[in-house]
Amino acid sequence: MRGRTVTTLTHRYRDGVLARTPDALIVEEPLAVDLDGTLVATTMRTPGHDFELAVGLCFTDGLLGGAPVLRCRYCGTGSAVGTEFNAVSVETGGRAPVPTPRLTTTTSSCGLCGSTTLDELSDRLSPLPVTEPYPPELLLEAAANATVDQELFAATGAVHAAAAFDRDGTTLLVREDIGRHNAVDKVVGHLFLEGALPATGLGLFVSGRASFEIVQKAWAAGFAAVVAVSAPSALAVDTARAAGLQLAGFARDGQLNLYAPEHLGGER
Amino acid sequence: MRGRTVTTLTHRYRDGVLARTPDALIVEEPLAVDLDGTLVATTMRTPGHDFELAVGLCFTDGLLGGAPVLRCRYCGTGSAVGTEFNAVSVETGGRAPVPTPRLTTTTSSCGLCGSTTLDELSDRLSPLPVTEPYPPELLLEAAANATVDQELFAATGAVHAAAAFDRDGTTLLVREDIGRHNAVDKVVGHLFLEGALPATGLGLFVSGRASFEIVQKAWAAGFAAVVAVSAPSALAVDTARAAGLQLAGFARDGQLNLYAPEHLGGER
Repeated sequence: MRGRTVTTLTHRYRDGVLARTPDALIVEEPLAVDLDGTLVATTMRTPGHDFELAVGLCFTDGLLGGAPVLRCRYCGTGSAVGTEFNAVSVETGGRAPVPTPRLTTTTSSCGLCGSTTLDELSDRLSPLPVTEPYPPELLLEAAANATVDQELFAATGAVHAAAAFDRDGTTLLVREDIGRHNAVDKVVGHLFLEGALPATGLGLFVSGRASFEIVQKAWAAGFAAVVAVSAPSALAVDTARAAGLQLAGFARDGQLNLYAPEHLGGER
Repeated sequence: MRGRTVTTLTHRYRDGVLARTPDALIVEEPLAVDLDGTLVATTMRTPGHDFELAVGLCFTDGLLGGAPVLRCRYCGTGSAVGTEFNAVSVETGGRAPVPTPRLTTTTSSCGLCGSTTLDELSDRLSPLPVTEPYPPELLLEAAANATVDQELFAATGAVHAAAAFDRDGTTLLVREDIGRHNAVDKVVGHLFLEGALPATGLGLFVSGRASFEIVQKAWAAGFAAVVAVSAPSALAVDTARAAGLQLAGFARDGQLNLYAPEHLGGER
């Protein structure tokens, strides 16, 4: 089993002081699931118990149709070191019904390994323009301001929020949704429809964790910073560093961790 | 804009006492997004700001390719009352690149409205066998037991967990993943590979919210109960009630809410 956590250096902000300290991050990598030779899903997951995940996904999506699973195996693509562990083949010997194919588009999160995905992104998206990093206290203020406007969360305790904020920490708009990605897409869609993209210099607040897909969306929209109330994934940190995007996590109770950029001014 | 919360009757368990009380639930419904005539995504979302969501999704997935959005509109399918608000068409007049289609399968969460989805599920899945409901204190004990084994969460603060438990509240297995659905799929896949499905009489613990898809997976696997640390969505509650699945939410600090079944023994 591959590693499920990695350690990175982060800057912890506590009581007005930034200190460099190691932090454990959860690994996030895509897994492609193939059923009897047909690609049926690609999911961003934490490595480990991959055969269970592949079989469970086929089963709960109703793809097995009562067929037994004869064999599971990792299938190599030959494209890069390690990618053979990001694709699992589930075999029923043709006893499962042929999956009903539907034409749909792939999202940018559908690669066969973290490095492929990051490379693809780097091809499509340019590094962001260099802007002055947000001071930690301003990120905390922006997070606190955005939280005030979460009316659906106040009513139900069940939604995620995303918000755009400016260099004063002022909230420009808040959107709430049961889906984390949807809340971000609503914010980005609003800015698009207002003719306000790229969001150069603006920050994006998210009420939960910062996964790869959240950071990728922020990069695509041109945000300068992402501040999350909870943890980022390892791939999210790598992506933010490649993008030149400032990334803060665990922003709550007057504290936060800075994951990107990797080096702050004055350091070597 | 359609309602984003609904009120339902729930049974609150506090200090050993069950009391019937209204509770606000967040609405969760699918949105189909069409770009210049091609279906590009279906996402489970909370209604509201749907044009922003549709445009943002197309933009952050790189589907617009720099094209302007000329028009957004709701498109009716004529299949059921209200479904016209669960499909949005984004139009660039053909200026966006033709979406690269990939053959993939649709999941059972891809309907065009909540009722269609539920109807489809009811067709495919039978109501669960009637079993004795779990007492609230046992659901709380199972949730507490499962939490003990969340080693990745302890290390990173960034993962979801799912666990199967039995009628003694004993944890049978715990799986952790950055994706909530993946953690559930790993548990279900394990039981499948052990020949232990359907999971009749067993309970499923999830560390976060109970969305429609979580309840749907539990139903498909035959679990008798789902206990979630956070809130369920309105569609999750409807689905659990249709399935005959016991559903508890906000299970923490010695308290929980019972959302399904709708009526407890002795009530009318």
